[in-house]
Amino acid sequence: MRKVYLDHAASTPVDPKVESAIRPYFGKYFGNPHSMHQFGQATSRAVFESRRTLAEAVGASHEEIVFTGSATEANNLAIRGIWKGLKRDGGLKKPRIVTFSLEHESILNTCKDLADEGVETVIIPSDRQGLINMEKFKKALNADTILVSVMHANNEVGTIQPIAKIAEIIKRFKAALIPNGYTLYPIFHTDAVQSFQYLDCDAAKLGVDLMTLSAHKIYGPKGIGALYIKKSVRGMMAPIITGTGQEGGLRSGTDNVPYMAGFAKAVELVMSSRIKESKRVGDLRDYFWQQLKKFAPKVLVNGSLEDRLPNNLSLYFPGYKAHDLLIRLDLSGVGVSPGAACSSRVSKASYVLEEMGFPIERASGSLRFSLGRATKKADIDYAISVIMKVLG
Amino acid sequence: MRKVYLDHAASTPVDPKVESAIRPYFGKYFGNPHSMHQFGQATSRAVFESRRTLAEAVGASHEEIVFTGSATEANNLAIRGIWKGLKRDGGLKKPRIVTFSLEHESILNTCKDLADEGVETVIIPSDRQGLINMEKFKKALNADTILVSVMHANNEVGTIQPIAKIAEIIKRFKAALIPNGYTLYPIFHTDAVQSFQYLDCDAAKLGVDLMTLSAHKIYGPKGIGALYIKKSVRGMMAPIITGTGQEGGLRSGTDNVPYMAGFAKAVELVMSSRIKESKRVGDLRDYFWQQLKKFAPKVLVNGSLEDRLPNNLSLYFPGYKAHDLLIRLDLSGVGVSPGAACSSRVSKASYVLEEMGFPIERASGSLRFSLGRATKKADIDYAISVIMKVLG
Repeated sequence: MRKVYLDHAASTPVDPKVESAIRPYFGKYFGNPHSMHQFGQATSRAVFESRRTLAEAVGASHEEIVFTGSATEANNLAIRGIWKGLKRDGGLKKPRIVTFSLEHESILNTCKDLADEGVETVIIPSDRQGLINMEKFKKALNADTILVSVMHANNEVGTIQPIAKIAEIIKRFKAALIPNGYTLYPIFHTDAVQSFQYLDCDAAKLGVDLMTLSAHKIYGPKGIGALYIKKSVRGMMAPIITGTGQEGGLRSGTDNVPYMAGFAKAVELVMSSRIKESKRVGDLRDYFWQQLKKFAPKVLVNGSLEDRLPNNLSLYFPGYKAHDLLIRLDLSGVGVSPGAACSSRVSKASYVLEEMGFPIERASGSLRFSLGRATKKADIDYAISVIMKVLG
Repeated sequence: MRKVYLDHAASTPVDPKVESAIRPYFGKYFGNPHSMHQFGQATSRAVFESRRTLAEAVGASHEEIVFTGSATEANNLAIRGIWKGLKRDGGLKKPRIVTFSLEHESILNTCKDLADEGVETVIIPSDRQGLINMEKFKKALNADTILVSVMHANNEVGTIQPIAKIAEIIKRFKAALIPNGYTLYPIFHTDAVQSFQYLDCDAAKLGVDLMTLSAHKIYGPKGIGALYIKKSVRGMMAPIITGTGQEGGLRSGTDNVPYMAGFAKAVELVMSSRIKESKRVGDLRDYFWQQLKKFAPKVLVNGSLEDRLPNNLSLYFPGYKAHDLLIRLDLSGVGVSPGAACSSRVSKASYVLEEMGFPIERASGSLRFSLGRATKKADIDYAISVIMKVLG
């Protein structure tokens, strides 16, 4: 049976070149990079070079990259690290975090978890297209706001948020707050896990202080993430995992050298083909939608096709249950997701679609198709034929 | 030039069989294990089986194993997770953690980090052999003690702590505390990172509630650890990394499927050869020491040769600086460590030897030799010849 994987937003296969970059650090170069001998020097160099590759890809310098065990950990470090750093340095009585209703659960649940410690979270709603409500965002900023966290692109519907515009608003807010002085708060964080494959993630152009990256969404391995931390912000953070002080004190634990090398290779591959691949996948996605519309005119797209990741197609199948469709597609070898992968083993409706203002029927009748590097026109044609068969 | 790696306590090379267990989960089976389709089912099964392998190795059931991004993270989860769970459930005003002066920094620095939150840490001293002072330990337990954390075996001098005896003392303390009732506090945690390769780590036999394991000390990859959590204790813990709720809610982040499979294979290899390999390495270590003593009678062992991991030899070279010796050994291809790897890029003396009561001269004149699976008699002979050359 033909297998067509259309769930690249959930995870991607490791590129053979990435695997080749990883393997030398299993058996050949295995020293602890913090060991002084030559066994350690070989891996220490790999860590440095990997860090530099990631840094360059976001227009940063090597000491602005902290490797973590996942993007979820990087999101936790961004939020908890800023809050913990502030507490350490004196704190605020009622600190505020401003975030967005369509964020990944590693943002939303982490903010929620800090409520016990007196951190107030203001969640800005989305419009029907999946875009943050900018008026409400502006109003949410106050003098106690320590952090703004808005994702670069959504994992379920692919909507791209106006990060540079948000950065500009924050900048003006800061200037107005202290007209004759300077404040680093609110810190601006973006989760660029889904966007890095397709969009320019230069930290300065986006205007962010913190940015989360993930390897396994860009054909690197599962189990490594990174947080870009602007130099001026670093000292304001505290670690959430403590020990012997790796990653400049911000994340203890023996360096995952093989995956760092693999992550760097995955980043290199993105950087060398990003624009071309975005165009290719975007054309293929548009073809998918145009064809499907012809055959199944009742199917609807969730969100706008503008301001959207080129590989994402979130579709509503009126009168069907996403769960049933998914299983029937799977039986024909087509792998898709009812929403985000992380939560899909529990059969609950997508909170993202509900937060976009769609009724529960639509949230539970929608599937996410996410294309990837290996997706070809023949795969799309096959997927369409299977969908048509399933819809009857 | 011959290369002799005698720093297995810092890290070990990935066993080729482990690498073979890892690789299918890079390009072949790559689905997110939380995806419902067949791509996810293949990896979901691997996660389950890996978890079960680890569980069986410590006499536990699969739901008692939580995978983490490092042993450091597992130690953080043990300490912070218990404290955070208690806070959530109502808390104590002045909770106490009882630990040991020779613990790894991921224990000591994490306890220190909680001082700001009102957690009191009592650090039990070591004797000259590296053993915990049991009288002081007994006295340190009080009604507010929420956690005891004592390592199974030390990373620098290899001393094996009497974990089962400590468990017995805790059990009696609990019984005396609430004669007609029952208390789960203090929870008993052990860091078994260094011991797992050589010692029985059955959780019930040791009498522990929590136990930390690491892959890269047992010929698995760097970047994965695990925490055994006794079923009755699980509900008392809170996660330190939050998100979509993987690992039964205790550690969010996409599962590192390749490394989980590799970790399980590494554990399997340990279990199938532990007793034999302990004997072999122990004999080799004893041979090393007997030969060296003949040629360099001034050299001294740090700690007792009893109650010690079979692969560890921590030696004091009177009149020499560890740093200089290390570099000169390295130039001849012999890789050793001045103490723990994690801190050795900064040239500071071993806190472990100082805490054992040795003067700073001894702490800064000592080297740790740690043998491993690939170490042969010829390697030891070579190392001795190099040491003799270096000592002049």
